[in-house]
Amino acid sequence: MSLSPDEKAWIARKLDSIGIAVIEAGSAITSEGERDSIRAVVRENLDAEICSYCRIREIDVEMAVSCDVDSIHLVVPVSDLHIEKKLKKDRETVRNETISVCEFAKDHGLIVELSGEDASRADIDFLRSLYADGIDAGADRLCFCDTVGILTPERTATIFEELTGLGAPISIHCHDDFGLATSNTVAAILAGAAQAHVTVNGIGERAGNTPLEEVVMVMESLYHIDTKIDCKELYTTSRLVSRLTGIPVAPNKSIIGGNAFTHEAGIHVHGILADTSTYEPITPETVGRERRIVLGKHTGRASIDAALRELGITAADEQLSDIFTRVKELGDKGMQVTDADLQAITETVLGISKKAKVTLEELTVVAGNRVTPTASVKLIVDGKDVVEAGIGTGPVDAAINALKKAIANTQDVGLEEYHVDSITGGTDALVEVLVKMRSDGKVITARGARTDIIMASVEAVLEGINRLIE
Amino acid sequence: MSLSPDEKAWIARKLDSIGIAVIEAGSAITSEGERDSIRAVVRENLDAEICSYCRIREIDVEMAVSCDVDSIHLVVPVSDLHIEKKLKKDRETVRNETISVCEFAKDHGLIVELSGEDASRADIDFLRSLYADGIDAGADRLCFCDTVGILTPERTATIFEELTGLGAPISIHCHDDFGLATSNTVAAILAGAAQAHVTVNGIGERAGNTPLEEVVMVMESLYHIDTKIDCKELYTTSRLVSRLTGIPVAPNKSIIGGNAFTHEAGIHVHGILADTSTYEPITPETVGRERRIVLGKHTGRASIDAALRELGITAADEQLSDIFTRVKELGDKGMQVTDADLQAITETVLGISKKAKVTLEELTVVAGNRVTPTASVKLIVDGKDVVEAGIGTGPVDAAINALKKAIANTQDVGLEEYHVDSITGGTDALVEVLVKMRSDGKVITARGARTDIIMASVEAVLEGINRLIE
Repeated sequence: MSLSPDEKAWIARKLDSIGIAVIEAGSAITSEGERDSIRAVVRENLDAEICSYCRIREIDVEMAVSCDVDSIHLVVPVSDLHIEKKLKKDRETVRNETISVCEFAKDHGLIVELSGEDASRADIDFLRSLYADGIDAGADRLCFCDTVGILTPERTATIFEELTGLGAPISIHCHDDFGLATSNTVAAILAGAAQAHVTVNGIGERAGNTPLEEVVMVMESLYHIDTKIDCKELYTTSRLVSRLTGIPVAPNKSIIGGNAFTHEAGIHVHGILADTSTYEPITPETVGRERRIVLGKHTGRASIDAALRELGITAADEQLSDIFTRVKELGDKGMQVTDADLQAITETVLGISKKAKVTLEELTVVAGNRVTPTASVKLIVDGKDVVEAGIGTGPVDAAINALKKAIANTQDVGLEEYHVDSITGGTDALVEVLVKMRSDGKVITARGARTDIIMASVEAVLEGINRLIE
Repeated sequence: MSLSPDEKAWIARKLDSIGIAVIEAGSAITSEGERDSIRAVVRENLDAEICSYCRIREIDVEMAVSCDVDSIHLVVPVSDLHIEKKLKKDRETVRNETISVCEFAKDHGLIVELSGEDASRADIDFLRSLYADGIDAGADRLCFCDTVGILTPERTATIFEELTGLGAPISIHCHDDFGLATSNTVAAILAGAAQAHVTVNGIGERAGNTPLEEVVMVMESLYHIDTKIDCKELYTTSRLVSRLTGIPVAPNKSIIGGNAFTHEAGIHVHGILADTSTYEPITPETVGRERRIVLGKHTGRASIDAALRELGITAADEQLSDIFTRVKELGDKGMQVTDADLQAITETVLGISKKAKVTLEELTVVAGNRVTPTASVKLIVDGKDVVEAGIGTGPVDAAINALKKAIANTQDVGLEEYHVDSITGGTDALVEVLVKMRSDGKVITARGARTDIIMASVEAVLEGINRLIE
């Protein structure tokens, strides 16, 4: 979950390049490792303002100064619940500390964004007077935090209409505990919020914060307001953050989810083929993605025909019906039909099934705690035996390396992506492996499914090899 | 993705038991497999109304009738885009077909919910007149579909204020392409919508539909309106659907995500310990869950102290500082610190580190396409060598079976859960294995992380065994 300094700097560069104005790089007081990360971001010399999270303590500010950040996000608990239960203080103590830390930070040349934590459960009069005192003490910006995500769009609008006249720009900071973070953030912007705190992929504590990509696309596409963010890089940004943090994105997540621009149901694909806008609010290219059409139990004849044409195959009407029935059968079994599956079905139906050029005769893998994971394979390639061995960082890696060596003389094949869905249940659960492979500019996906992760991986890669060397 | 008839019936029983009024069980025209599923749901004889999706074709209705459903969701494309580009028809043809299919369905004794597809891009006057004609033809309910998810809460409210006076109850059906489905659905309900179409976990085409759990909790907790849904079963319902469909839920998903009630940051845990409401809008128990506190780089001393007390360990102040530093170091490396990690650190610091009772001397695993996956292990258990062998459905299963046999005489240990996060990247990616194990009523979690999935699994299980037999 935590990021190394290099990884944080990488993400910061990306955020800066797509037009993000302020980057909160971490909380300097947290640890030496965190300070290293913040400094790595500062060293990038980006256009974006680099900010550190601080509590109302001088030591927090000193640590931020030691990282040479531009600004601090000074978070002040403002609800009585937070003031009394968490801080065990009272309103006036908090007010005095806020004023004194604001002044301290300004004396150190920092831009100060004064943030009311748990503001959505605070006494609004106290909040307003605290903001006013903060501005007097030098705060440059304000922020309203809906710390436990209980705002509704209507309430957000009302609050921001009240707070935008205080003499300093005010930000909105939402949490997604009820799934309303995007909607609340947009409501605040429309009611005058000057900035919105968002995170890539909506990551953050608990249910996370407001997703960057949703707010940007809602403003751009539904309200036609220019956010100055490079929308075409939203998807690559999402992938970068997901890969580096290890936090997966659900397939059904808006804008960035694996299926956000995937069409399966036959009726929909029929519409998509006629006019992409029928089932797409924006084109996938708008956010730097591609449309994906998969076949399944809802697939209609129109989409199968289209998919075949893409593979360069023309099928007669009754052949198409036969292919259609077979795809449906697979769909009923709960499978998504990949292009490799479709090609295999089609070849059978059209009687053009070529024998696989590469078949597996023998595979043996040895692994353990005192052996280097080692695999031997015997393949039959164009009728001839080829035997090879390979080692790897684990048994799967060893097996795939052996396989790659065995076909290296026949074809230069690259494994672009290797993906195993999360395995849950027992050690005997079904493992599904998806691979994306490339050769001479041709890219295909293939799949293997077994209870044995090695065999599932080898099956997927072999299927991919055979499709690539046709 | 598709569900078997048994699985659909299982989910339907669950939905019925938590208070769902209408269950759309599938589209009867799709395939024989789909009809089997719908019939399986109908056979459950639930309180809920069982519904089938139909297009404006008599054959769709006949197929629904053949499944003996209570009602149909009759979906009529109403935007000119859908009418012209997808159907290649005109408004009046669609109107006539709608009237005739409505009458046909009513003649067959079905409840009819007449749904305007792509209604949010339709001419509202045409839509209103089509709804009126539908009601005249016998439609019992109406539905407004935001097919590509372009509604905003404000527009939804305006539309529903206009449409609720048409003489039939009207439902809202949203898609989450911009992350506004929950907000729009709630806006429709507040403006008079009689029903809301939702899905468990927000699954559905592309970015999915409105999540059941979010709408229910927003209505209950933020608007204090009784939904008559059994909130305490929302989490079990989510898990059931995720398990059966294989569609994962993101950790940062509201209400149902793995981290929705997890607290890491030290400052937050400090607040949580003082009063759970400081950082929780609702208690996890409200939706049938438990609070989870994990340690990491943001962890404060207070939460480590609390975690230790839970483990029954009292540490002196400087020992606590030492443990604190070590936890931070792990956190800086990007690790979430499990209770096993904390215990190991603590034992080292307090000098009470017992040698692991069970250590791995040798592990050898052989797998391949022509061998039964086989593993041999040599363990040292209480100073004595124990050698065993096991077979399995794959190399991991074989290794764990061998391990279990080797310690069977020492302790009866059960592997309750085995989980591998999705593996993405290359075949040499880091694999993290989490296990939950039980012995004599004691339950622990442990972890292994290696590039070798067998070794990561063995590491996790061995760590678990050692903690269980203390």
